[in-house]
Amino acid sequence: MANPTAAMVVIGDEILSGRTRDANMHHLAGELTKIGISLEEVRVIPDDHTRISETVKTLSAAFDTVFTSGGIGPTHDDITADAVGAAFGASVDIREDARALLAAHYARTGLELNEARLRMARIPDGATLIDNPVSVAPGFKIGNVHVMAGVPSVFNAMVASVLPTLTGGAPLLSKTLRVMRGEGDIAGPLSEMVEAYPDLSFGSYPFQKDGVYGSNIVARGSDVAQLDMAIAALAEKLGVDPT
Amino acid sequence: MANPTAAMVVIGDEILSGRTRDANMHHLAGELTKIGISLEEVRVIPDDHTRISETVKTLSAAFDTVFTSGGIGPTHDDITADAVGAAFGASVDIREDARALLAAHYARTGLELNEARLRMARIPDGATLIDNPVSVAPGFKIGNVHVMAGVPSVFNAMVASVLPTLTGGAPLLSKTLRVMRGEGDIAGPLSEMVEAYPDLSFGSYPFQKDGVYGSNIVARGSDVAQLDMAIAALAEKLGVDPT
Repeated sequence: MANPTAAMVVIGDEILSGRTRDANMHHLAGELTKIGISLEEVRVIPDDHTRISETVKTLSAAFDTVFTSGGIGPTHDDITADAVGAAFGASVDIREDARALLAAHYARTGLELNEARLRMARIPDGATLIDNPVSVAPGFKIGNVHVMAGVPSVFNAMVASVLPTLTGGAPLLSKTLRVMRGEGDIAGPLSEMVEAYPDLSFGSYPFQKDGVYGSNIVARGSDVAQLDMAIAALAEKLGVDPT
Repeated sequence: MANPTAAMVVIGDEILSGRTRDANMHHLAGELTKIGISLEEVRVIPDDHTRISETVKTLSAAFDTVFTSGGIGPTHDDITADAVGAAFGASVDIREDARALLAAHYARTGLELNEARLRMARIPDGATLIDNPVSVAPGFKIGNVHVMAGVPSVFNAMVASVLPTLTGGAPLLSKTLRVMRGEGDIAGPLSEMVEAYPDLSFGSYPFQKDGVYGSNIVARGSDVAQLDMAIAALAEKLGVDPT
């Protein structure tokens, strides 16, 4: 049976302008792979209500689970909650459970729970909250969409909160064979492996080290015995040590 | 007048599985911003013929220029040329100009121009080549789509080859005000700036340093005098030093 699928929406002008380098996609990709959920698409889009809403709607219909990152803070450009609410036709307002979390947090830290900070308690109707052990202001889940923060430490903490609630599939395992030869020299033998092992997928990733070309050949699949066999066979074909 | 728009397609299972961290999006974003082209969307998709072809078709119709990264090497998973050709209804075959480049290169380096390496001379009909000063195998441009390599050093070199051929707009400038205060405290004054300067866009990016919350407030626009004025006004509102 095929593994569950997922998509991610990275929301933020600062990523598209090159000001900030996104780190959340790489983190989520690794975590999903570990539990056998196949990340099938990532879209990076601006802080724009319509774009967020339309993108979430499209991906929510096409994939089993969707994750968003960014735009749930207290400032004017934090519009993700409203846009995702709109995607589901849900009204968005300050919710008591979220307000209570923030009130307790700011009482502890001595900061004022002002109008701006109260924006972070705006949650679409029918959503469930996602725990934020780093800075309290929660994410939320509505339909199959998980709405999470953009700040990497907070995003990672929210992913950790969400992971146990997801149903994964067979974890995607991988084995890598490192060959100090250019891709052009290994492409032929590699194609034979692709034919011989239809249940596995193979990728080849070239690199340069001290001016010498090499390739990392990665076999992916859910059966570790088959992966070992394929890598051993390829190593023999190429006359290299598989370990 | 609005600046020209662009989109990017990052192609590669290795990015979506978390094996490799993409670096090309961040590089391209910064380069396009410098010349006044607005990167409006990035999609990361797998090595899948239909997905590549459909994504390129969609983005090519929606934006002025499209850039792809990945999938133009010599191995079986390098299917971008065929998929992009299909998106434009162009047949794809070994092209003499591309083959000549490869032949000269491999003659110089003493490596064999074998069948796998010849794949890198497969170019859609009607495309123009993109120069690759790093490893010779060219990218190409067809319609408004620039097809480039995934290896960052080669991608960056191809971007440098392409940039002089693009028509940019007014460069998007930005000024940053760093405030050692949480976003919740600056959101109010910041909103007043958003109202007062409709030609600028403002973003706020929180950070933590030694346990203290701070925010980088970024104003973006094409008029440097207006940016200076806005940042000075905001600094005064917040009682901080604008320099």
